[in-house]
Amino acid sequence: MSTQRSDALTLAEKLAEIRIDNISPRALKVARAGIIDTIGVTLLGSLEPPTVVLKKALAGGISPGEALMFGTDRRVGMLDAALVNGTASHAADYDDMAHAMGGHPSVTLVPVIMALGETLGSSGRQALEAYVVGFEAECRVGRVVNPHHYEKGWHPTSTIGVFGAAMAAARMLQLDVQHTATALAIAASLANGVKANFGTMTKPLHVGHCARNGLFAAQLANSGFTANLDALESKQGFFAAFDGLENVDRGRMLDDWGVLLEAEQESVGLKQYPCCGSTHAAIRAMLELVGRGLKPENVASIEIKANRRRLPHTNNPDPQSPLAAKFSIQYVTARSLVDGAVRLHHFENDAYVEPKVRELIARTSLAAFPKTANAGTHEEENEFAADVTVVTKDGRTMVGSVPHALGRGGANPMSDHEMWEKFSDCATRLLPAAQVADGFEALQRIDQCANLSEITKMLEAGSRS
Amino acid sequence: MSTQRSDALTLAEKLAEIRIDNISPRALKVARAGIIDTIGVTLLGSLEPPTVVLKKALAGGISPGEALMFGTDRRVGMLDAALVNGTASHAADYDDMAHAMGGHPSVTLVPVIMALGETLGSSGRQALEAYVVGFEAECRVGRVVNPHHYEKGWHPTSTIGVFGAAMAAARMLQLDVQHTATALAIAASLANGVKANFGTMTKPLHVGHCARNGLFAAQLANSGFTANLDALESKQGFFAAFDGLENVDRGRMLDDWGVLLEAEQESVGLKQYPCCGSTHAAIRAMLELVGRGLKPENVASIEIKANRRRLPHTNNPDPQSPLAAKFSIQYVTARSLVDGAVRLHHFENDAYVEPKVRELIARTSLAAFPKTANAGTHEEENEFAADVTVVTKDGRTMVGSVPHALGRGGANPMSDHEMWEKFSDCATRLLPAAQVADGFEALQRIDQCANLSEITKMLEAGSRS
Repeated sequence: MSTQRSDALTLAEKLAEIRIDNISPRALKVARAGIIDTIGVTLLGSLEPPTVVLKKALAGGISPGEALMFGTDRRVGMLDAALVNGTASHAADYDDMAHAMGGHPSVTLVPVIMALGETLGSSGRQALEAYVVGFEAECRVGRVVNPHHYEKGWHPTSTIGVFGAAMAAARMLQLDVQHTATALAIAASLANGVKANFGTMTKPLHVGHCARNGLFAAQLANSGFTANLDALESKQGFFAAFDGLENVDRGRMLDDWGVLLEAEQESVGLKQYPCCGSTHAAIRAMLELVGRGLKPENVASIEIKANRRRLPHTNNPDPQSPLAAKFSIQYVTARSLVDGAVRLHHFENDAYVEPKVRELIARTSLAAFPKTANAGTHEEENEFAADVTVVTKDGRTMVGSVPHALGRGGANPMSDHEMWEKFSDCATRLLPAAQVADGFEALQRIDQCANLSEITKMLEAGSRS
Repeated sequence: MSTQRSDALTLAEKLAEIRIDNISPRALKVARAGIIDTIGVTLLGSLEPPTVVLKKALAGGISPGEALMFGTDRRVGMLDAALVNGTASHAADYDDMAHAMGGHPSVTLVPVIMALGETLGSSGRQALEAYVVGFEAECRVGRVVNPHHYEKGWHPTSTIGVFGAAMAAARMLQLDVQHTATALAIAASLANGVKANFGTMTKPLHVGHCARNGLFAAQLANSGFTANLDALESKQGFFAAFDGLENVDRGRMLDDWGVLLEAEQESVGLKQYPCCGSTHAAIRAMLELVGRGLKPENVASIEIKANRRRLPHTNNPDPQSPLAAKFSIQYVTARSLVDGAVRLHHFENDAYVEPKVRELIARTSLAAFPKTANAGTHEEENEFAADVTVVTKDGRTMVGSVPHALGRGGANPMSDHEMWEKFSDCATRLLPAAQVADGFEALQRIDQCANLSEITKMLEAGSRS
């Protein structure tokens, strides 16, 4: 690629080729799953402290409009909706991830798509298309700047995600190539978020702000606002300022274009359980044994084997709080056996000390897999495999094994039933069960939806604010 | 200063010592001038394309509230007011500058102070105090990261100014030290703006966004939002991500604390004329001669001498557009002689080809000062001096000489009359003359104002939107 070429324009041109009619069924399925999953965690996150305090801070300063503020029945301006819903979507740390982006791909897209879609009366097919091109944009920028970008201290979900948000909004607004490129160039000037604020309410705020800013960039471009199309690659542009031109590889932006969409990559994953991602393979290995008939009362011993990189932060046989239980591989594995599931309420109140689970933890041992040939390599860093071996009281040995996988996606997506289990676990926190079921069903049929506000109407939460 | 200490907390603690009662009269005069000047250029900038298009893009998505959207009679939410007024304040490139900040100090402060002050019903004295501490905060952060920060590609008025905006807002909200430090830490996560978008509407948008974000950070902190207090200096904080810790000098943050306030420094300056800052000394040198009785019809020849660094972008004896005239040192010097002033309308329509001015340009020569001993030094880079030598038709030689100065400030502030000339030139673009005079007078007495909304009430612009 010539260095004289505007990257924003190149990206906008290439993305213009991607239209709902030529998007693969697999990518559309990922898009649908991403939308459903993100709306579920947004409903959950609407109850979390960062969202509650954000709404308090905004107080009277919220504009009226057509976009649902999730977790309420309030309709507000789309920028405010994107800000609040975007913050909620990341507040419970339960959202999906994409390796190429180096962050969480859907929380920057779905709040934008829904807020704009409700306001414009867009269809579900437009939403799916906008999701796929937004996903593509943020991962393509991520390819250029990663892994340096994350290590430098930026929060990629926000600083890279803003390009996805702008792209998704540009597509919803049906901008042409030139205006889309301008939206991306404006987004370069609105990117923000440093990792120093991880562990505080400001982390999910980055995401809400990113969603708002991306949407804002597209609105500005749509209204005739100007920006320089070389704002990504120029000497004082996004790449130079955020990473230094010597630390990025612009050529990677279009690598393998047309082979697989970013949304179709193996490394995209939904987070199936509301606990540390490093424990998920062990949970699934145990659930495999439950599926084969294993009962807690038959267990003599449990041995968990996982990658050694997963253990330092998850080896905790005696968690002392609900939060600590989220990072206890012993707890979540035993919990899977007791309940045949891992749910939000397992990390609340006194669940972490429940005797039935504690008895199983007492029979559990934990070990690392032997070092593999690829130890220390990037490949190995992504090892999320686990084996669970149970010896039963009647002397049988059962082994559950889950290979390398971070999250559920690629060749191993969550089933509709698994999606439902997570969605309903999240949404029933604030909506009646029947409404949750109707909403989920409507989201499953999003490709047939003529107007997205029909769906959000079904997700309004009484008279909460 | 220990590296273990939070810079946000240190800065908040030190700034807590600065209160209206211990601020020097000179600093208060700078603050008053900064507020008056910024409101003038904001009124002017409300008519500029970036502001007009921004309002179009926001359309229905503006929240109701108490804060005046300058250039209209509309009252809106304070975040939206800060966004729109902040953009307007920088849209005409006519705002002041501060060397320590490496940018424009007042446009990040005044939109915040006014929007919040009107909403809270704050007094003029509160506004002056908030201005001084906001100014101090942004310049103190600027000392740490400059000159690297600007060279890297960041737009300091926005990326550094957000700390001033947050600080000014924190003081208006009367936050304690801990909450003020939290506001500064949140601001670190909201800083944005790359210079690649200079020359487009996105440049002034940076400033509006900065004002909004700084105000937002303080509102969030005030409501109990959390951030890490080490967000400036930590390994993945503001300094590391924006500049690299090796390129900043944290020790400079408190250099000379208590000697002079940043607002009192010699290097602070208002922009007196609506054209390139590199031409201002020549204008003033010519006006000196006008003051001594020089008339255009008596001029045989004009020689302008200026620093060689000022000439490449201002040596233009034949400007071909109103914009080019702003960068023609020959045009503005001749114009000063013809009108005894340089005004906005001199850069509009056909003013740039006016025969009386063109005749004088034909008699004008331009030369650089000889290289000085400090050539190539930082000192020399700040040389903005000019001499104008006129030989009259009756054989006299008159020399006007203006020493090193960028803008009007420090020991050489604009007089009340000069402030009025600029303010009325800006404000009469959209307000009746009597209203402009009343508004200016009210702003001059801002220290006696009990409620800032009394002042903005006087600046409402009919029924414009």
